[in-house]
Amino acid sequence: MQRHFVQELESLKTNLIKMGSFAEDAIAQAIKAMLEGRRDIAERVIAQDERINLFEIENDDAVVDLLALQQPVAMDLRFILAASKINNDLERIGDHAVNIAESALYCANHPSPKMSVDIPRMAEITKRMLRDAIDGFIQNNPSLSRSVLASDDTIDDLNKKIVKTLVDVMRKNPETIEQALEFIRVSRNLERVADLATNIAEEVIFMAEAQVVKHHLDKRDAGH
Amino acid sequence: MQRHFVQELESLKTNLIKMGSFAEDAIAQAIKAMLEGRRDIAERVIAQDERINLFEIENDDAVVDLLALQQPVAMDLRFILAASKINNDLERIGDHAVNIAESALYCANHPSPKMSVDIPRMAEITKRMLRDAIDGFIQNNPSLSRSVLASDDTIDDLNKKIVKTLVDVMRKNPETIEQALEFIRVSRNLERVADLATNIAEEVIFMAEAQVVKHHLDKRDAGH
Repeated sequence: MQRHFVQELESLKTNLIKMGSFAEDAIAQAIKAMLEGRRDIAERVIAQDERINLFEIENDDAVVDLLALQQPVAMDLRFILAASKINNDLERIGDHAVNIAESALYCANHPSPKMSVDIPRMAEITKRMLRDAIDGFIQNNPSLSRSVLASDDTIDDLNKKIVKTLVDVMRKNPETIEQALEFIRVSRNLERVADLATNIAEEVIFMAEAQVVKHHLDKRDAGH
Repeated sequence: MQRHFVQELESLKTNLIKMGSFAEDAIAQAIKAMLEGRRDIAERVIAQDERINLFEIENDDAVVDLLALQQPVAMDLRFILAASKINNDLERIGDHAVNIAESALYCANHPSPKMSVDIPRMAEITKRMLRDAIDGFIQNNPSLSRSVLASDDTIDDLNKKIVKTLVDVMRKNPETIEQALEFIRVSRNLERVADLATNIAEEVIFMAEAQVVKHHLDKRDAGH
């Protein structure tokens, strides 16, 4: 029984690692589709979200099984609860990848002059945050997780700067308002992914140190 | 011990009901601030989000206690897991109220001609969805919860219509682009609140019927 429990926990962890890779890849591919006008890639991101959704259902079931059948305590319980939240966060990251892919499709279908905004840099930082959040979880490494929290303000600032630039674009070229709106949507979705990576990092810290970081840091801006 | 467990469960439920009222009120007040240009109300919504955040921490602790100390099974376990997710959803609804209040502040500080978009109707439907989702939870009434799911498409359509109208506004009056963007932000935040109300309704149905509704309905659009 004890052996079985350990195996089930390991299997949940492995599943979350795989799901994390899918989510990370979905964001990377959606951004690539947006920046390169690649309809094929955007469509693949949208189609593959189903895979992430199936992971969520499977992991949710595993959490229920572990809690119902095994009555875990202390460290194991904290791990299972953190896993349940991370599972939910990753599923939502998948949804944001779909939103970005939809914007990519719109822009591929309605080409406009190039928008000079720093989406590539924002995407790089967000992807690194997500990777570090997942690695922090895998390695149970709270100091890696803390580095994720430190980047969240940078992303908020970048988002504000990008929106401001795009407002100027809209003002100067009213014929590109729709495309500029899609870029704003992409920027806001990246900002939400960074928030979710921050959530994951907080869960890892909570799990490692049984300490609630959320709401105790300097107040951060919330879900746009 | 058993008696104590029942009391703790009841207390978690009561706390979620209170938190739900706060979240519902925060959305209602934020929208009022937006529509009537009331800075004072917007500031109050932002200040009171702390109350909702404290509820989340308290309820999270209660969930951990219940799971760690009481080893619940079956129906109780499902209730506790649903409570944990609803707790998270309500906290996020509070964040969306803050976002709307921030837009209200911006628009109060930068007055523009009236925007003719149907935010009032969208807000009414969203508030009703949220109220029904919470009532469905309180009364453990899955048919009330199902009515919430039915409204989600209406909200998605309204959001699209409102964004379209605002794009026209921007095109005709480039000097009001910033204000129109804030209205788009409010519309998208309301749409996210409707999504979260839908999540809560799904949790209630799951709890009542132990059946995963999520991802099995017609595919719905996700977190914008």
